[in-house]
Amino acid sequence: MSEAITVIGCGALGGYYGGLLAQHGLPVAMLTRTLAEADLIATQGLSVTSPGGDFVVQPVAVSADPAVLPTASTVLVTLKTTNNHQLGAILPACAAPDACVVAIQNGLDVERVIAEALPAATVLGCLAFVCAHKLGPGRIQHIDYGPLRIGQWDAAGEATGVTAAVERVVGWFQAAGVHASAMPDLIAARWHKLVWNIPFNGLATLLERDTQQVLADVHGRQLVETLMHEVVAGAAACGRTIAPEFVTKMMTDTERMVPYQPSMQLDFQAGRPLELDAIYWAPVHAAAAAGQAMPATEQLAHLLAVRAAARSAVSDAGPATA
Amino acid sequence: MSEAITVIGCGALGGYYGGLLAQHGLPVAMLTRTLAEADLIATQGLSVTSPGGDFVVQPVAVSADPAVLPTASTVLVTLKTTNNHQLGAILPACAAPDACVVAIQNGLDVERVIAEALPAATVLGCLAFVCAHKLGPGRIQHIDYGPLRIGQWDAAGEATGVTAAVERVVGWFQAAGVHASAMPDLIAARWHKLVWNIPFNGLATLLERDTQQVLADVHGRQLVETLMHEVVAGAAACGRTIAPEFVTKMMTDTERMVPYQPSMQLDFQAGRPLELDAIYWAPVHAAAAAGQAMPATEQLAHLLAVRAAARSAVSDAGPATA
Repeated sequence: MSEAITVIGCGALGGYYGGLLAQHGLPVAMLTRTLAEADLIATQGLSVTSPGGDFVVQPVAVSADPAVLPTASTVLVTLKTTNNHQLGAILPACAAPDACVVAIQNGLDVERVIAEALPAATVLGCLAFVCAHKLGPGRIQHIDYGPLRIGQWDAAGEATGVTAAVERVVGWFQAAGVHASAMPDLIAARWHKLVWNIPFNGLATLLERDTQQVLADVHGRQLVETLMHEVVAGAAACGRTIAPEFVTKMMTDTERMVPYQPSMQLDFQAGRPLELDAIYWAPVHAAAAAGQAMPATEQLAHLLAVRAAARSAVSDAGPATA
Repeated sequence: MSEAITVIGCGALGGYYGGLLAQHGLPVAMLTRTLAEADLIATQGLSVTSPGGDFVVQPVAVSADPAVLPTASTVLVTLKTTNNHQLGAILPACAAPDACVVAIQNGLDVERVIAEALPAATVLGCLAFVCAHKLGPGRIQHIDYGPLRIGQWDAAGEATGVTAAVERVVGWFQAAGVHASAMPDLIAARWHKLVWNIPFNGLATLLERDTQQVLADVHGRQLVETLMHEVVAGAAACGRTIAPEFVTKMMTDTERMVPYQPSMQLDFQAGRPLELDAIYWAPVHAAAAAGQAMPATEQLAHLLAVRAAARSAVSDAGPATA
């Protein structure tokens, strides 16, 4: 069967990773949010600037209407999780019933809505460690980093091991020059990333400070450490052991990074909805179901919810980082 | 012995309550922060507007230098607690060694610094339930409310019962038309007020919302309730029982109030230091010493500390409410 890949969402993630696959010869179609952006990419191509080399690439198809794209055998979902409710309509319109669907998104259990929309699909999850921005329609700026960790989703939350579907998608990205890894336990990979995402996304957003400013304040550092240890405890309750040294490593790695505004902070500043369900409430509820409270995470999520409600959510477009 | 009363601080609290005592015939001297304000009050008097009747009153003495005031037999401390470190110099300079010193301040254990500055003093604590502002030097606007709850401080944190010193000061305020109550247990009174102060001061400041906006948001309400119950648990660990109905009453009372910006929010907006030690860390440490953690309060205090450090503290003057 010939492959047909569709990227849902043409933000920083979809544009960068989808663009790379297209640039390396794979048949990539793109679903944009607006007709205008589809027209622009159709005429001028998708433009990516990157330390790894700038390129302009032409998708095999591009549209704002999923029904007019080639039926996809593989789908990369690169929407913000706050738009995942749209997948129930989008996926059946553009993907084969038994497609492989890869959620390149942060948070926990973001794949469930995909499995519900396309029950016969093979569902993968993917974590992107990348700094990239959308400069404008069809124009992506890759700043730094780029590794992907890909694993297979399981409805019961079990580790699947490295499946053939995971190896196939990892292989594509590796061939395109991406440092992609196959993860035997997607849930464990997601919890590991939450150790960073839960403290830094929330604190940076709430306090309007970048990562360095949060860590430079003794109170900020204390908040980060408390939240990180709470995430480790939540993961443990869900059967995923995270080594204590991982917390130390996250702290020192972040200190060595350039000052960084996490994606939620950018979403907040741009008036976009915050990914509270995926990054906060899903882990809190998963841990609670396993008998472990995450009160610091919960309090931070409530604070963010009030703060977000105090502005109006204006758009789901614009720059994104992960 | 003839009475000599000195009010330390001529902000909203000192101006309103000190002004009332002077207006009702007591010999009240005032210590101002600046020479200019002392000169202004000396020439034009202290001006108070109030629903209970406007008045202008002349203190028996007014100065920015504690050493030139009449030696006080009673002192009302109405500074923000963030200025309490100044009392070690001020009190010995203006008060008799065995003076009665009344701390009209929020928080817990704010009286200890007074007892250290003036070891032979009788130390009282006072909670003010009032909305008042300082309009400018020597000009106070009383908006609403005004009750005082006064009790005797004890170094070991024990309830003293209603002492003669408390009854005397309560009597003065009652004679001046203030709804003043003698409290047999100052620490219990302070914990009760913390049930309101800990959630609303911090959340309003951090989220930049008034009391009504915090309560109108389901997440804000949840945060308030969690914090209130945690304060009740902290009080219980310190041997002070607060009835569960008190939490319900605080919620409904606050809903019925006009939208209100707590004093810490005004301090934050004005660039003044926040009363984190008195309102947050003292209760957290007292409860911890009694074996009870207050993690939600602690997290809120850390968040406020980072937020406060992100602006520069410019002044300790200006409007105040309690």
